[in-house]
Amino acid sequence: MLAAARTAFAERGFDATSIRVIAADAGVDPALVHHYFGSKDKLFLAAIEAPADPDELLPGVLAGETSDLGADVVRLLLHVWDGPGRAAGLALVRSAVSNEWTARLLREFLVARVLRRVVGSLGLPAAEAEARGSLVASQLIGVVITRYLLQVEPLASASADELVAAIGPTVQRYLTGDVELPGSAG
Amino acid sequence: MLAAARTAFAERGFDATSIRVIAADAGVDPALVHHYFGSKDKLFLAAIEAPADPDELLPGVLAGETSDLGADVVRLLLHVWDGPGRAAGLALVRSAVSNEWTARLLREFLVARVLRRVVGSLGLPAAEAEARGSLVASQLIGVVITRYLLQVEPLASASADELVAAIGPTVQRYLTGDVELPGSAG
Repeated sequence: MLAAARTAFAERGFDATSIRVIAADAGVDPALVHHYFGSKDKLFLAAIEAPADPDELLPGVLAGETSDLGADVVRLLLHVWDGPGRAAGLALVRSAVSNEWTARLLREFLVARVLRRVVGSLGLPAAEAEARGSLVASQLIGVVITRYLLQVEPLASASADELVAAIGPTVQRYLTGDVELPGSAG
Repeated sequence: MLAAARTAFAERGFDATSIRVIAADAGVDPALVHHYFGSKDKLFLAAIEAPADPDELLPGVLAGETSDLGADVVRLLLHVWDGPGRAAGLALVRSAVSNEWTARLLREFLVARVLRRVVGSLGLPAAEAEARGSLVASQLIGVVITRYLLQVEPLASASADELVAAIGPTVQRYLTGDVELPGSAG
């Protein structure tokens, strides 16, 4: 069932994939998939072995002030990665870098399950939201690789507070600041 | 000879490794290493199969205005990665993410051969230079992963000019701006 889900999500993307399609591919009843995983969201998280569940973590971030969103997003990222989610996160990133299909799954996770909700809270036009979201992704993914994989100092052993102070303003600028956005023909 | 060089650079780091040590490990005369590779720099680039030679590319960037350094660094990164260096770059990143030793080599390449020269041009105290360099690394590596590996849109298909405009200011801030730097006990 998880193998069928991985294939479907990687081939079609999160939006175009339904539990019905995955159940058909796996040769089981859709009710069985619902029974085991509850929702398409949960099935997706299980399929990619996500390090954390955005449904549980994002509402707290999105409940804060828009002017703190950049700092709050960096703090959440570090909370997940400095905690027990790191092993699963590293496995996911390693797999995504070496495997084209896992790369698609990680992109779907980031774009559809994380960034779209964070940037979606700002009420922007779709193209602007995607552009800002992809810039946010570039900084957050870079922190993950630099801190946890390459371990470039002093970023690797800096405290969460230090990184929130240094990198939060970048994410805030990408989210709400005056940025010349890619894809806007400008 | 390259295998001995990779081992030595990964174990000791770039600074603490000499051609003499590598030659001894490989069981050859140091003069032979000099003959084939010319310098420790060139041997290192060959050992990690670097996508580009910083000695050739960085002087142009460093000759520009300090106020343009962030944009110029982003432009150089995209010049290498949007050009024939991409295949070697992707191979190096893939290897670094899956292999602890290649990760050390890539870190040495970034820190000792690229960032130290870029940030070094600013004449900062060593600790501040390292802190600013690691922040720059986090943004540049993130662009590479987001654009070329995960291919998150619209960043993946944006023009170099668009990305220089959007991301150059972040790198400029990390290089010369007012940033609360990690590792400064602040």
